[in-house]
Amino acid sequence: MSESAPETGANGTVTFVNRFTLHAAPEEFERVFAETAEFMGRQPGFLEHTLFRQLDKADGYLNIARWRDVESFRRAVAHPEFRPHAAALRALSTSESSLYTPRRTFAAAEASQRLE
Amino acid sequence: MSESAPETGANGTVTFVNRFTLHAAPEEFERVFAETAEFMGRQPGFLEHTLFRQLDKADGYLNIARWRDVESFRRAVAHPEFRPHAAALRALSTSESSLYTPRRTFAAAEASQRLE
Repeated sequence: MSESAPETGANGTVTFVNRFTLHAAPEEFERVFAETAEFMGRQPGFLEHTLFRQLDKADGYLNIARWRDVESFRRAVAHPEFRPHAAALRALSTSESSLYTPRRTFAAAEASQRLE
Repeated sequence: MSESAPETGANGTVTFVNRFTLHAAPEEFERVFAETAEFMGRQPGFLEHTLFRQLDKADGYLNIARWRDVESFRRAVAHPEFRPHAAALRALSTSESSLYTPRRTFAAAEASQRLE
């Protein structure tokens, strides 16, 4: 096991991954989540996010959000206007989250990607 | 709670997310994982993947892989040549995985994205 904490990637971006388990209707959760995402999208350093639904578990969702750096992410979640969004999501779900740094990316040949 | 299982996204892509907890050196895991990724990258329907390292947990890794459709993904993990890769990863880590379908994506304005 490495004794040192990992550094952020060469480009400094961090990826925030949040796994949700709903105790409310998915439609309600997605509506409230969209409001949170709209707030996050206005914060400096936000790059992009995708909300996913788990295929084999109706109450499972995953959010993957990419930020320019750790500091931008921390500023956004510490913002006073984030609090009501976090509370609204907590009222509908439990969640578990972690921050990650990219280590290695590999994409298929362009020909395959164009099938999207 | 919705009674129906979610469908895959409009474009049909699925995202496979695998959380690893290592019981080996990160360098060894990353080496073996790269070999697995090389195999996956040659399978039809593979689009892209990123291996991430958890920032606050030295033994935590996450792989996010995008596939053209569920069938391509299932064919790849059922491939006989995948077995030794899976066994090699199991020898170094425990893992938990799920398949997801995208529900909503939002990216920052182009100006922010260009900061990458």
